[in-house]
Amino acid sequence: MKLKRSSRLVDMTEYLLRHPHQVISLSYFSERYESAKSSISEDLTIIKENFESQEIGRLQTQAGATGGVCYMPSMGCEEAEQLLERLQEQMTRKERILPGGYLYMTDILGKPDYVNAIGRLIASVFINEKLDAIMTMETKGIPLAYAVATQRSVPVVVVRRSSKVTEGSTVSINYISGSSKRIQTMVLPRRSLKEHARVLIVDDFMKAGGTMKGMINLVEEFGARVAGMAVLVEKKEERPKLVDHYVSLLKLSILEQQDTLTIENGNVYEWLSESASLAVKEQPISTKTAAVKQYMSK
Amino acid sequence: MKLKRSSRLVDMTEYLLRHPHQVISLSYFSERYESAKSSISEDLTIIKENFESQEIGRLQTQAGATGGVCYMPSMGCEEAEQLLERLQEQMTRKERILPGGYLYMTDILGKPDYVNAIGRLIASVFINEKLDAIMTMETKGIPLAYAVATQRSVPVVVVRRSSKVTEGSTVSINYISGSSKRIQTMVLPRRSLKEHARVLIVDDFMKAGGTMKGMINLVEEFGARVAGMAVLVEKKEERPKLVDHYVSLLKLSILEQQDTLTIENGNVYEWLSESASLAVKEQPISTKTAAVKQYMSK
Repeated sequence: MKLKRSSRLVDMTEYLLRHPHQVISLSYFSERYESAKSSISEDLTIIKENFESQEIGRLQTQAGATGGVCYMPSMGCEEAEQLLERLQEQMTRKERILPGGYLYMTDILGKPDYVNAIGRLIASVFINEKLDAIMTMETKGIPLAYAVATQRSVPVVVVRRSSKVTEGSTVSINYISGSSKRIQTMVLPRRSLKEHARVLIVDDFMKAGGTMKGMINLVEEFGARVAGMAVLVEKKEERPKLVDHYVSLLKLSILEQQDTLTIENGNVYEWLSESASLAVKEQPISTKTAAVKQYMSK
Repeated sequence: MKLKRSSRLVDMTEYLLRHPHQVISLSYFSERYESAKSSISEDLTIIKENFESQEIGRLQTQAGATGGVCYMPSMGCEEAEQLLERLQEQMTRKERILPGGYLYMTDILGKPDYVNAIGRLIASVFINEKLDAIMTMETKGIPLAYAVATQRSVPVVVVRRSSKVTEGSTVSINYISGSSKRIQTMVLPRRSLKEHARVLIVDDFMKAGGTMKGMINLVEEFGARVAGMAVLVEKKEERPKLVDHYVSLLKLSILEQQDTLTIENGNVYEWLSESASLAVKEQPISTKTAAVKQYMSK
């Protein structure tokens, strides 16, 4: 189809947004629109400027015969602040306090606009990391994991508490819940993870981090590597944590006796500014941030 | 921000794609870009033509002082055919056959590009339906439900097999599994559904339809209404089905004894052509298709 610039811009924007973290060759667009590569390059410059001024991500172009373009979604600091503020507003209601120091978040995690925005924020933090899979624990973490995975075009693997007939053969490990100190089991289908895969673990809620630590062990059981960890909400008073070097969007304190809760920002801004400072140097996609090294505290 | 047409087109495309099924006033765009409404209208015409020729959805504009624009995502027949073909190719492998007549789909449902495409296809079928929520059963249906919900900007409610501390007070019902004839329980938080809400039920797999029938009963327990039902895969030989008038993308036959399986298209094309024929008449968003009436067979 032969298209004018205005139509090409609409179509390319849609195409890039739907294919994040995938390198698309200029030849593809050039053939798709029956246009010269020089015109495509000009189109991409317009799109790039817009994405950057709107802070919805980077558009990296690679020159040369194998030249292509790659859209890497991210979230600007302003949008991140607004998102965290809205989440705090929503969550800071004492009727949300549940027995056992949990927070009722089912309604918030049910809304795709929140879930997808949280996914974009987490994807922003790990924008410079090479990722092969997103891992989460059933059930509440699943939508968040898919929201991140959509921004990265990588698969999700869901850890379960017991093996299911629909999963085929599985690998299971035992772990000790950090807060209740009970022995529990987690299970993952054998075909889920390849050796050396780089895995980002995403979950909705972290108390002492026992589940997170279990998932780290499970990743290692497959000969894969943890490339990062992110949780939506961490419990502040649950100390010491069993894991280290994770990203948290929000930090929750619940005083059950007094029926009160407070929520503050987690450590996500520190991580964001780190990944943004790397962004300025326009790192190729495959470069890993050296910072992410040690995941488990002793 | 004052923007040129080319930048406006990029930004509006991104904005519309991220806000499906939401009416956005022309004034919003007009203020956002410091441009006259007449220019905005021209931009929208360009976007509309592109979306329609690419078959990625409708752009409905409403005239008048409260005038606005609404992007309603859909999938063209060609893309739907390609998607179903690719899914069939992926699924038609005998090593996918699991004990009990199930199919191993965990890897396919782990890939966000498949999941999101399936979500767009299901959203296409129900493009003319007013929807207030997407319901699914944990665990495998969850990503599909969010994929549909994202296209519709409505919340997801997840039915569970037992009540969890993180869900607050719940409503539970017993139902009889269609194939195993066992009594099972399903549970939904009390705060999940409002009375009269119009609910689309989405699931990954349907044998005789016992779970689906249970979810219909659960919807009714809340005084809500089933607006439609969709499954990714239905078992062909499992007869009679306990529910009627559902959409299926694929139809599966497994001969366990002979270790063979076949997959064919479900009834989704009939549904698609029905919703497309309504589309031609440019129905307002709130109009319901009269066809969807009777959900349960006697």
